[in-house]
Amino acid sequence: MKFSSKIQKCGLSPIRKFYPYQVEAQKRGMKIYHLNIGQPDIKTPESYFETVRNFSAPVLEYAPSPGMPVTIKKVEDYYKNLGMDIQPGDVVITAGGSEAITFTMECILDNGDEIIIPEPFYPNYKTFIYNTGADIVPIKTSAEEGYRFATREKIEAAITPNTKAIMFTNPGNPTGVVLTPEERRLVADIAKEHDLWIIADEVYREFTYNGEPLATMGSFEDILDRLIIIDSVSKRFSACGARVGAVICKNKDFQAEFMKLCQARLSVPTLDQLASASLYDVDPQYLKDVNVEYKRRRDTVKEELSKIPGLVFSEPEGAFYVMVKMPVDDAEKFLIWLLTEFNDNNETVMYAPAGGFYKTPGAGINEMRIAYILNCDDLRRAIQLLGKGIEQYNARK
Amino acid sequence: MKFSSKIQKCGLSPIRKFYPYQVEAQKRGMKIYHLNIGQPDIKTPESYFETVRNFSAPVLEYAPSPGMPVTIKKVEDYYKNLGMDIQPGDVVITAGGSEAITFTMECILDNGDEIIIPEPFYPNYKTFIYNTGADIVPIKTSAEEGYRFATREKIEAAITPNTKAIMFTNPGNPTGVVLTPEERRLVADIAKEHDLWIIADEVYREFTYNGEPLATMGSFEDILDRLIIIDSVSKRFSACGARVGAVICKNKDFQAEFMKLCQARLSVPTLDQLASASLYDVDPQYLKDVNVEYKRRRDTVKEELSKIPGLVFSEPEGAFYVMVKMPVDDAEKFLIWLLTEFNDNNETVMYAPAGGFYKTPGAGINEMRIAYILNCDDLRRAIQLLGKGIEQYNARK
Repeated sequence: MKFSSKIQKCGLSPIRKFYPYQVEAQKRGMKIYHLNIGQPDIKTPESYFETVRNFSAPVLEYAPSPGMPVTIKKVEDYYKNLGMDIQPGDVVITAGGSEAITFTMECILDNGDEIIIPEPFYPNYKTFIYNTGADIVPIKTSAEEGYRFATREKIEAAITPNTKAIMFTNPGNPTGVVLTPEERRLVADIAKEHDLWIIADEVYREFTYNGEPLATMGSFEDILDRLIIIDSVSKRFSACGARVGAVICKNKDFQAEFMKLCQARLSVPTLDQLASASLYDVDPQYLKDVNVEYKRRRDTVKEELSKIPGLVFSEPEGAFYVMVKMPVDDAEKFLIWLLTEFNDNNETVMYAPAGGFYKTPGAGINEMRIAYILNCDDLRRAIQLLGKGIEQYNARK
Repeated sequence: MKFSSKIQKCGLSPIRKFYPYQVEAQKRGMKIYHLNIGQPDIKTPESYFETVRNFSAPVLEYAPSPGMPVTIKKVEDYYKNLGMDIQPGDVVITAGGSEAITFTMECILDNGDEIIIPEPFYPNYKTFIYNTGADIVPIKTSAEEGYRFATREKIEAAITPNTKAIMFTNPGNPTGVVLTPEERRLVADIAKEHDLWIIADEVYREFTYNGEPLATMGSFEDILDRLIIIDSVSKRFSACGARVGAVICKNKDFQAEFMKLCQARLSVPTLDQLASASLYDVDPQYLKDVNVEYKRRRDTVKEELSKIPGLVFSEPEGAFYVMVKMPVDDAEKFLIWLLTEFNDNNETVMYAPAGGFYKTPGAGINEMRIAYILNCDDLRRAIQLLGKGIEQYNARK
């Protein structure tokens, strides 16, 4: 039996493929510190579960294809508070940010089209894009430059006559980079000059740690006809299992195409939408507390990483990730070694090897992504384990 | 800004486009009997809501990409009870039957490929398939033949060198056709002879009314390497708003490709999966009662339709739909007339014009799909309104 050439270009998750080694290590009684996954440990606001408990309709019916009015309203209000002129039809609820991206790609990308994305990037973008028949052209960055991509030279080097869009996660996964206002403006200008769609994945918007809150790309009024914002409740409210996201776009033609896909899949789950709407009423202190906690974690990670000789990394400014170049031959081999050979008081550590975050073959081979989703004590210990690991790994004969 | 050629081949839902006329009629105080939508009025089993209420984890985390073990187990057991040899990895949980179909198409269809589907068919298949770059080749049927498609002549007439799969809904939406054991075997044989995938959308499995319960296509052991079964809790347990479905396939290569898409979209909502698992523990009497109720509705529809002169239809054997050819010029025009001009005691009726269920241009122009999802009294009145409508519509000058 034959398969699509497009699905065959896709791969399994580069983050999940080390799971068998994890299982084996756990069987041997090892405790593993998980710096490899993006599942936050922050409590989901209680209003989510209250809403679900209070649901009393006798039939669990389909929700409307564009989303439930109450959920749309909350997301509309959220973007109005960010200063955008949001009108009816600009917000559509999706099955997580994932569906928002998938449908966006299906609307705008054709066979042979190209989309430019700063590298390293969220690995699942590959699957979403390759299934349209389009290709990713990476905007090259480096650990030494702090993975910053928003220079005219770097971006324009990736543009070809086939380029249809520029996409980026801001704050960045896996890099932790937050674009400056000037960088955001530059991206907007280049997209205008080259007539490109801008896809701004802003699901980590609240997770910035250097004072300035992140303004949405939607604050530039001159690009609203080409701007597609991806949003989600997953990280903002620690509700990853809700799978409720949104697309925000003021281009009516785009929304008309997007709605074809929404109607075909019928609806997003009814209960999760209702409960997600309630999240937007959470006390603003919740988001402030979460931010303070992550900033503390960020600082802890930075402090501990600074003690390890030979690492190259920059202070992460947002999201809850940091990319680190290590003085090892191969981050995948080192990770397997950590899970099979290394043992410090029956403890070891996992990270995400960065190869899967690159499209360029061989790039990122000695880099890793750390997700700082543990409490500060555990983070400290985890990174100390990394340091010991690097030392022992390189001392092998 | 430009859009994909593939999305531009897709359309909005042919069922939902008459909604504006409905709204206007309701503003004028008209009561509308809805025979146009597939949202059942049957109560969702209480265990769904109980499970959701009892959820007590502090963080709503991602579920595993293939589905939650408890949910997978229930679907596995369900198929074991149908007599299939189900092994680990054969069942994957999806975001409704819709996602199961979308991902299946993305796995097996390439640009220029063809999939054959008996016509009329569920309109959303078009969107799922066109977005892969493949095309649908319809297997032609007619109202006079009761929309039956499973003859060697009809099926082979649709096969070309580009055909990769045959897909059908059984019991049929919109036709209500249930394949006989001989017809099922014939489809299996032809798929084997021509080396085709078989996609069996069996979401209406419990909804058969002529005694014989529906055996799954999975009962044919010689086609299990090419068989993909689409399933869902939506209709079975009247839980459309859960958006929990499944794909059942014993081809390991298929499941490996399918998992790439599952991992990319991360997971299906956690609460809905847990609650859907509980549905499989419902008292078997629930499904029996539902079946009895729908059989009564089916019989009512049949009885009332038989009183209207000039209709062509066959006794629907399954699902909760019946296709009817009417003595009118155009089912869309007639529907608009029913919503704008017709008035019987301030009541009127809606159905789904059948054009959208066809790919062949012009086909189904004077046909409609009736969904019998109302109680018997309302169904009787609704179909009587149809009869009066046809008479008055054709008597206009």
